[in-house]
Amino acid sequence: MSVNDLTGKVGEWLRGIGPMADIVISSRIRLARNLANFPFLCRASEDERREIFRTLTEAFSSAKLDHNTYLLDMEELDEIDRQVLVERHLISKQHADGEGCRGVAVSASETRALMINEEDHLRMQVLRSGLQLEPLWEEISDIDNQIEAQTSFAFDEKLGYLTACPTNVGTGLRVSVMLHLPALKMTGEIEKVLRAAKDLRLAVRGLYGEGTDAIGDFYQISNQITLGHSEEEIIEKFSENIIPRIVEYERAARNALADERSMQLDDKVWRAYGILENARTMASDETLFFLSHVRMGVSMGRLQGIDVGTINELFLRIQPAHLQKMHGHALNGEERSVARAKYLRSRLGHQN
Amino acid sequence: MSVNDLTGKVGEWLRGIGPMADIVISSRIRLARNLANFPFLCRASEDERREIFRTLTEAFSSAKLDHNTYLLDMEELDEIDRQVLVERHLISKQHADGEGCRGVAVSASETRALMINEEDHLRMQVLRSGLQLEPLWEEISDIDNQIEAQTSFAFDEKLGYLTACPTNVGTGLRVSVMLHLPALKMTGEIEKVLRAAKDLRLAVRGLYGEGTDAIGDFYQISNQITLGHSEEEIIEKFSENIIPRIVEYERAARNALADERSMQLDDKVWRAYGILENARTMASDETLFFLSHVRMGVSMGRLQGIDVGTINELFLRIQPAHLQKMHGHALNGEERSVARAKYLRSRLGHQN
Repeated sequence: MSVNDLTGKVGEWLRGIGPMADIVISSRIRLARNLANFPFLCRASEDERREIFRTLTEAFSSAKLDHNTYLLDMEELDEIDRQVLVERHLISKQHADGEGCRGVAVSASETRALMINEEDHLRMQVLRSGLQLEPLWEEISDIDNQIEAQTSFAFDEKLGYLTACPTNVGTGLRVSVMLHLPALKMTGEIEKVLRAAKDLRLAVRGLYGEGTDAIGDFYQISNQITLGHSEEEIIEKFSENIIPRIVEYERAARNALADERSMQLDDKVWRAYGILENARTMASDETLFFLSHVRMGVSMGRLQGIDVGTINELFLRIQPAHLQKMHGHALNGEERSVARAKYLRSRLGHQN
Repeated sequence: MSVNDLTGKVGEWLRGIGPMADIVISSRIRLARNLANFPFLCRASEDERREIFRTLTEAFSSAKLDHNTYLLDMEELDEIDRQVLVERHLISKQHADGEGCRGVAVSASETRALMINEEDHLRMQVLRSGLQLEPLWEEISDIDNQIEAQTSFAFDEKLGYLTACPTNVGTGLRVSVMLHLPALKMTGEIEKVLRAAKDLRLAVRGLYGEGTDAIGDFYQISNQITLGHSEEEIIEKFSENIIPRIVEYERAARNALADERSMQLDDKVWRAYGILENARTMASDETLFFLSHVRMGVSMGRLQGIDVGTINELFLRIQPAHLQKMHGHALNGEERSVARAKYLRSRLGHQN
């Protein structure tokens, strides 16, 4: 499998089919692990990085994983291909921009991605559409056990799993849920929600994780603390409490808009649609902004004839690397804006 | 004829058929006259106003005018009907909002309007699509002569025709040309044109004359001085020099946009179109703004399937009084915005 095989389709997590998929784009769990007999990467030589890479890829092959994964060697990929993986949420931006021997093993459905030599020796990620943390936890626990059976992870009886950054020590767990909260943004209540999340010591980030803004009304909520809490506790808190409550707030805000400001709501949705299907040049951020309004309109049944899965797909395909992949060569910013507008027109069906 | 008969159709001047109609919306000439044996209106009693009204309407009837005109008594019209006449450029805002005995005689084609008891006893106006000042001057001279043959105008051998405001003394002539200059606005050159117009002692106003802004990139250029210049001199200067030069500037700006910034140009035109055919609520000013861009796109052949006449008609019909007339009752601002968006959708053909 190559990056070209990926770009022809859309990962499972973008299909908009899981529980609460009108508001919960995707759920993600990742575990950070390091091999017991190697230094952390900040202190590892290039030879040691290669040995870690070899050890882990062999462990993947020997492990009884229920899905095949395909290894992508980051040093063999060009910049656009690496960026495609970032846009598909299969690797981090740091991993794409990094140096030295590193890679990722990806399943065909894109529900799992095992990064080698990112910040830690191994970062395992599972990803699904909608709110599905419990099945994801079962899945990643199994992957973790299967790989650990083949090799030895750095583990301390008192501290738990050891990681390059102290914030990950313990379980090495990060639970992230990507939410689409346009109505809370429109009603101005989003600030309250973000303050409450902060009080619960949750991190709130944008579409591409750490250091990115919440463009297009997408918010990624994740835990910050990994030490002193069991994995099950964290996951239960997210699944049973935190996320359903935010979803409830967003639904209440949508209902309030539909009841009290339906004309303004429809106006926002339809203007966004009108611009997307007619513009001749579109920057990335404004596209996310307008797609966000259209997505809300589709989810609320106020704009028919398109499904949420299609809109989710557009979110993916209008991004810089995907556009360039589609065109088969590199495009500068202006060319991308023109290509983006053209693609949107072709997908949204207006024949201009 | 009543105001209801007017609103079903569009005046000749909006058909977009005259010379240079891509840029010159309309040409207008008006003459200010006062009856010799009556005081100016600021000093006239209500009885004298009635007598002026009677004298002039009788003169209209007896005069050999080549088009029939129909008299509308302003005191018998409600506020919406008076506003309809303003929106159709048949009377001034002052005339609509004024008090006391006053009226207007309008021809069925709406190419002429004779206001009684506005600022002067009589204000005669002729109006046509495109740049047509010479035929308009012939037409209004004939009307002037025919009416003067029936009554006596206040005239001074040295000063010429006497008028209520000193700026109109002499010929009582105002020549106005309405221009659509979106490209000069886009390229930023409009300021230079406006400064040059000011240096020539021309007045530049918006869509509804004195005291209105240039919304929708419409500029009304008119003479300010009536004393010491012959009518023919003023008209020739407008027809042969001032207006063709501004039209040339606008055409050059349009060509430059098409050559150097065609993508940005099309983007502006098509986004405006997309919003107009999809919005659910539209304020009046933003509608003029977007229609202006669409009009430019249609004139430049960049947006097909609509003609300039249709766009000109939309400019008329989206206005407050016309919308209310169409609905058969008064609408508040919010209701008008919703009705305006609905009407635009119905005319621009998208089936949402």
